[in-house]
Amino acid sequence: MVRPGKTRSGKVGLPPGSLVHIGEKTAEKTKISLIHYNEQTLQRMDIQQISACASFLQETGISWISFEGIPEIPVLEELGLKFGLHPLTLEDILNTDQRPKMEDYGDYLYIVLKMFYFDNPGKVDIKSEQISIILGANFVISFQEQAGSIFQPIRERLDNARGRLRRSGPDYLTHALIDAIVDHYFLILENSGERIELLEQALIKSPSAGMLDTLQGLKKEMILLRKSLWPLREMISTMERSESPLISKSSVVYFKDIYDHTIHIIDTLETFRDMLSGMMDIYLSSISNRMNEVMKVLTVIATLFMPLTFIAGIYGMNFKYMPELEWRWGYAMVWGILLTIAGLMVLYFRRKNWW
Amino acid sequence: MVRPGKTRSGKVGLPPGSLVHIGEKTAEKTKISLIHYNEQTLQRMDIQQISACASFLQETGISWISFEGIPEIPVLEELGLKFGLHPLTLEDILNTDQRPKMEDYGDYLYIVLKMFYFDNPGKVDIKSEQISIILGANFVISFQEQAGSIFQPIRERLDNARGRLRRSGPDYLTHALIDAIVDHYFLILENSGERIELLEQALIKSPSAGMLDTLQGLKKEMILLRKSLWPLREMISTMERSESPLISKSSVVYFKDIYDHTIHIIDTLETFRDMLSGMMDIYLSSISNRMNEVMKVLTVIATLFMPLTFIAGIYGMNFKYMPELEWRWGYAMVWGILLTIAGLMVLYFRRKNWW
Amino acid sequence: MVRPGKTRSGKVGLPPGSLVHIGEKTAEKTKISLIHYNEQTLQRMDIQQISACASFLQETGISWISFEGIPEIPVLEELGLKFGLHPLTLEDILNTDQRPKMEDYGDYLYIVLKMFYFDNPGKVDIKSEQISIILGANFVISFQEQAGSIFQPIRERLDNARGRLRRSGPDYLTHALIDAIVDHYFLILENSGERIELLEQALIKSPSAGMLDTLQGLKKEMILLRKSLWPLREMISTMERSESPLISKSSVVYFKDIYDHTIHIIDTLETFRDMLSGMMDIYLSSISNRMNEVMKVLTVIATLFMPLTFIAGIYGMNFKYMPELEWRWGYAMVWGILLTIAGLMVLYFRRKNWW
Amino acid sequence: MVRPGKTRSGKVGLPPGSLVHIGEKTAEKTKISLIHYNEQTLQRMDIQQISACASFLQETGISWISFEGIPEIPVLEELGLKFGLHPLTLEDILNTDQRPKMEDYGDYLYIVLKMFYFDNPGKVDIKSEQISIILGANFVISFQEQAGSIFQPIRERLDNARGRLRRSGPDYLTHALIDAIVDHYFLILENSGERIELLEQALIKSPSAGMLDTLQGLKKEMILLRKSLWPLREMISTMERSESPLISKSSVVYFKDIYDHTIHIIDTLETFRDMLSGMMDIYLSSISNRMNEVMKVLTVIATLFMPLTFIAGIYGMNFKYMPELEWRWGYAMVWGILLTIAGLMVLYFRRKNWW
Amino acid sequence: MVRPGKTRSGKVGLPPGSLVHIGEKTAEKTKISLIHYNEQTLQRMDIQQISACASFLQETGISWISFEGIPEIPVLEELGLKFGLHPLTLEDILNTDQRPKMEDYGDYLYIVLKMFYFDNPGKVDIKSEQISIILGANFVISFQEQAGSIFQPIRERLDNARGRLRRSGPDYLTHALIDAIVDHYFLILENSGERIELLEQALIKSPSAGMLDTLQGLKKEMILLRKSLWPLREMISTMERSESPLISKSSVVYFKDIYDHTIHIIDTLETFRDMLSGMMDIYLSSISNRMNEVMKVLTVIATLFMPLTFIAGIYGMNFKYMPELEWRWGYAMVWGILLTIAGLMVLYFRRKNWW
Repeated sequence: MVRPGKTRSGKVGLPPGSLVHIGEKTAEKTKISLIHYNEQTLQRMDIQQISACASFLQETGISWISFEGIPEIPVLEELGLKFGLHPLTLEDILNTDQRPKMEDYGDYLYIVLKMFYFDNPGKVDIKSEQISIILGANFVISFQEQAGSIFQPIRERLDNARGRLRRSGPDYLTHALIDAIVDHYFLILENSGERIELLEQALIKSPSAGMLDTLQGLKKEMILLRKSLWPLREMISTMERSESPLISKSSVVYFKDIYDHTIHIIDTLETFRDMLSGMMDIYLSSISNRMNEVMKVLTVIATLFMPLTFIAGIYGMNFKYMPELEWRWGYAMVWGILLTIAGLMVLYFRRKNWW
Repeated sequence: MVRPGKTRSGKVGLPPGSLVHIGEKTAEKTKISLIHYNEQTLQRMDIQQISACASFLQETGISWISFEGIPEIPVLEELGLKFGLHPLTLEDILNTDQRPKMEDYGDYLYIVLKMFYFDNPGKVDIKSEQISIILGANFVISFQEQAGSIFQPIRERLDNARGRLRRSGPDYLTHALIDAIVDHYFLILENSGERIELLEQALIKSPSAGMLDTLQGLKKEMILLRKSLWPLREMISTMERSESPLISKSSVVYFKDIYDHTIHIIDTLETFRDMLSGMMDIYLSSISNRMNEVMKVLTVIATLFMPLTFIAGIYGMNFKYMPELEWRWGYAMVWGILLTIAGLMVLYFRRKNWW
Repeated sequence: MVRPGKTRSGKVGLPPGSLVHIGEKTAEKTKISLIHYNEQTLQRMDIQQISACASFLQETGISWISFEGIPEIPVLEELGLKFGLHPLTLEDILNTDQRPKMEDYGDYLYIVLKMFYFDNPGKVDIKSEQISIILGANFVISFQEQAGSIFQPIRERLDNARGRLRRSGPDYLTHALIDAIVDHYFLILENSGERIELLEQALIKSPSAGMLDTLQGLKKEMILLRKSLWPLREMISTMERSESPLISKSSVVYFKDIYDHTIHIIDTLETFRDMLSGMMDIYLSSISNRMNEVMKVLTVIATLFMPLTFIAGIYGMNFKYMPELEWRWGYAMVWGILLTIAGLMVLYFRRKNWW
Repeated sequence: MVRPGKTRSGKVGLPPGSLVHIGEKTAEKTKISLIHYNEQTLQRMDIQQISACASFLQETGISWISFEGIPEIPVLEELGLKFGLHPLTLEDILNTDQRPKMEDYGDYLYIVLKMFYFDNPGKVDIKSEQISIILGANFVISFQEQAGSIFQPIRERLDNARGRLRRSGPDYLTHALIDAIVDHYFLILENSGERIELLEQALIKSPSAGMLDTLQGLKKEMILLRKSLWPLREMISTMERSESPLISKSSVVYFKDIYDHTIHIIDTLETFRDMLSGMMDIYLSSISNRMNEVMKVLTVIATLFMPLTFIAGIYGMNFKYMPELEWRWGYAMVWGILLTIAGLMVLYFRRKNWW
Repeated sequence: MVRPGKTRSGKVGLPPGSLVHIGEKTAEKTKISLIHYNEQTLQRMDIQQISACASFLQETGISWISFEGIPEIPVLEELGLKFGLHPLTLEDILNTDQRPKMEDYGDYLYIVLKMFYFDNPGKVDIKSEQISIILGANFVISFQEQAGSIFQPIRERLDNARGRLRRSGPDYLTHALIDAIVDHYFLILENSGERIELLEQALIKSPSAGMLDTLQGLKKEMILLRKSLWPLREMISTMERSESPLISKSSVVYFKDIYDHTIHIIDTLETFRDMLSGMMDIYLSSISNRMNEVMKVLTVIATLFMPLTFIAGIYGMNFKYMPELEWRWGYAMVWGILLTIAGLMVLYFRRKNWW
């Protein structure tokens, strides 16, 4: 996730449109399913051959073909042929190291964006997956990198014959898909927000070196989310202001709604970044403060005992003629001196607030 | 307040326009009141049924329906039906985690913004509340999260039959509502400004670790205000330049006035941010300075007493043949040496400005 | 000056256009004077009643009414009535906490800006004052917060019947007023520049904690000037590109000239900011350097005397059987050892450049 | 690479269009080769005389003349004459210290950009080379600073008579050349990304002063790549939106594709910069942390042994009348006191977490 | 150079167009020379009276009048009269504290920019001079602050009757003058670049406090160059896109060329700034590292000798009953203990990498 473009090197020198899968391969077989629906009917089926899909295009209604897993290259080539997709589109679908973008190819719009999710609700490890969506006149094709339940709620909403999804065109379905992905960003940020708050409380209570790692981890998380969010915002803004006939007037308000969500997410992210950099300041000044505290202890002890040890040293000398040594109350006097000096030192430290 | 989007997770996967209340629930019942007025008459009433409002729409004059507390979902749905509100509007009213914005739905404008206030004048704890305003051809609907007196002065101004409010349209009423909210930002910033000044004086006098927390608290306050202010500015600018027939030419100058206020508030906020970051510098360098002071004390003491203790140690040795020990004035001589060394050290520290 | 909007709280909840004086009240009475001039004649008079001014508006020639001190509210209301000023303009004149701006009300332009000056040439305390200017078809009205000599040179230039001021319209007079104010910024910045240079030289010679306060004071000064300068630039740019008939073609080149000055001032200000932040770096690293120096002294002394004291301690032990103590040259030998160790230490410190 | 403009000084004062080679001279002879192709045929030849190329311009098909090594000035002058190149273009080809740019001279486009590559795959030393491309109606001229294999894959693709390169115009060939160069940036960034990750892991494990040098080296690398990338982005954006008839409609989508790559590269670069600055923070706070640790050890030892040494010193005094010295259990008692003090100290340090 | 606007204070209050010389006065007399040329002939002469120039304006050909030194005010006034210059232009020529700009007065363009040069090639002290250029229909007037050889190469190129300068109009001559000035920026930056590199190498080898001053000096140099460069870029961009008939179509490509140079210079400058701020980081962390090293030495020595000295102190006590003192091998045993402790300490420091 950190090393963007990592596996691109395999493609250097190839012509554009060369179909090479860039990204991690998954062992699972790609699952292709189709939902064909209109206001009256809805059909679901698992697809083995692309040609099976194509026949539905002739009928009225909307076809939603969804790939869970990146398709094999021959499958993709056939798909390209049947649905009239540009070679660059096919190349981009295979390349899972894309920047979110929307491209208008006239007959269809090609949309690519990143979904972030937690592998396991308890874990803090954020995973990302690339989602490609093709919006045609009467079809939508979606590509996920891995099988996943993200679009399940939409499939369920389609069952509702009176729902807006059934009554609207493929642009509204596309909106629903993007909306589901954008909603996941809220989940991620809520989780980050909670961890930031916990860290902040811990930092204020007692900072430790381990917290710096957590802090840096959160910072890096924000950097990576940010890298996806700004182009996402741009992409949705392009869609909203698009003049493509594939996006109907009535859908624009819904894309505007997603746009607002994206801005809101970005605002939150930037707020988090500001907060994290404030926490870095807290951490750094806490190190300095603790150093100060340590130094004060050292200074107090050294300043207290050095003069005392010196005086004891004086009367440890072996001169033959040291009158004090002979005095009856010499020893008591020295203790008097030592305690006086110690007392004055303590007063001095008190006044300096070092004690 | 820190965790934006916190409670949004409940909505992930739902279709847009789903009415789910996002935000803290308050136990109180929502209070609905209506003021119907024109230049001649003014009527006030508490509303139980939305249908009661709707009848006023037929009459000449302006209806201002104000909700104190987020309405129950069935009430909102009925309102939507009677006043022709888009499902997304209804959804946004319920979601109290909105970014300030203005949306033109043709028949009405939907405005959402944040109000900041102090719960208790003496407390420094800033609370925020979301205010939604719907501006129609002859009605204004306002939604507050909680019962509050913020719009009370406007209600009183409406009583004045010769006031501009009574003579103007619903756009001027909307302006008055927004103006009241924006004015509250001045109150907040005045308070922040006073606290910043107090902190600065305290920091210059004698910095302490506790001040860092205050500083970070103020910084965070600024981050959060900023998050509301920039979209607020944008929203008011959109209204001012709006070509909607719902905003009359003569009102534009008033929206421009609010716009100026917003810019002024933002300028002040940014100035505060600059000042706070300068104060952080003061704090950090004061830590370093104090460390320096502590180190100097330690160094002076150590440098002074180490050589002296060494000399005392020399004459504490038990060698059989140490001629000095036998000397008549050996002890006095040692004191002479010790005092000379101490004197030279003090001179050296004086010259270095360490004493 | 630090707490913008401080006294605005008194206005929260009032309708726009409410005339409330915001800012410090001055005890002095407001002085109103009028100069009516055209190419042939020039009349000066002190005004008691606004009605006295109004009569001049009928005659050919230009009337310049200048208020030194904020007018009383009834006076302002009468002025508003006679000159057809919008309530918002009157409100803004009274509110001396304005952001520089220019507003085109059709019949007149309302200009508000900040003047900075030193109360006393020797003092470094910068004062600010708000200047409002109203530019009408054949009149100019200027408002100063306090009596002051800033426009005196312009009054003198008006005496010169062949000067450009007498031959030009009220737009050129307005230009002259703004130009006088902008020129004062150069004075302020020259003074700041000198203080920055002195501080820099002092910092490089020997940094002290007091310099940090001076540095922060200069930084704050820059923050406050900046807050006025950017909107000033914007305002003058608006005037220069204004399509108002009140600004004649031939005056545009003069406004462009002021615009250049403003940019020049801002450039200088930003340069100062960069220099101040560089000086902060010098200050901070000088603290670190001095700490290093102190630590080196401590380390050298401790490292030198600790082993020596230890050796003296060894021969201070009272064991019965310590052969060295009995040796004839034992004492001399110990001195030999001590001096050798000290010599080696000094060599080591020399090589490390710590001595 | 660090000192841009280094060798420009030789040109100061010369008129524009003066042909002076700026940059490092290479000893090798410049190799000129020509490929003339259309859909049916393809001819390759090594060129000695520019006139040999010119004859191909009359024939149908596309001529690609590639210079490996900067041409001698007379050769370049002849080329300029035959192909109608502007003197400024010729000057720019010779000056290998150019900022990436595209210039439309009407009859041809002049494109200049930087290629980055590793001299030796194992080495981390990034080299840069300037590539100039001239795109004419039926010819492309490319200039490399040194012989290199970067365009080899394109030559091979040209052999494929059914490839898109053979079927398209010179604009597509230009696209292919630029694409090959941009693809190299991915290689560079992948390598940098790996080194950044390694450094980060090393830093988190145990930071050392040497890592700071590596960190600064990587930062500098990013600064230099950035300096080429932003103008590159701008250049490709200019080409994509160019209205020159030399770039056909169907090629625009391919330039858009490169544009996306460039944005992607820049995003990655900026992410790396953010990560590097986060690593600097880790490094700096690790220094502070280690200092703290060292200081704690010192303080613990000093605080522990100073009081103990003082007590031993007390009973090392030689007073005649020190009752404790005579006690039977005096020595044991002192050991008791010493051990008690030491124990209490250890407890204190434990509680402070310093042990 | 640091205090912009320094001497402007003399002008505060004067009307615009007042001719007051702002800047350092030079004692030398202003030298005025004229070159009148067309494709066939070229005349050079030294001018005493402005009227002498004016006569050439009637003839065909181009007159280049160059002032070396700021002209006396009466001379300038006469020039203004003869050549129809606006009073603001004359004022700007005298004011040598201008921001680079280009102004279109219809009949002529007024260009002002800054030239930077070294007084003495070996010195690092950068001097700046203001150059004003007036481009008329058939004349160019240039003003230098001091006599200097910067335009000498252009005078020599004019001698060449077949050169482009002789064949082109006054716009091309203006281009040549600006080009000569911009080329000097490359010289300055090359020199800065070399000094930055030397400093960087020195910093990496062994940082010293003196280097901080050099670093700050370079930073300040960059701040000052930057202050001239950004408006220069803007000015040349204005010229390039100017629609003034005084700049011919064919010259635009040459101004575009200078524009590219300016961008290139700015890029280099920004790169230098980034590098300098990276070097500041190196410097600061090197101070911290050295502090760490010093502290380690202190800690090692203190930790080693304090326990040893304590043990020696124990056996220096004078208790009557200390069995160890009587032992035959007591002394040897103590040495054993001391060496064991020292050995263990050394092992501990080794493991901590402090030795």
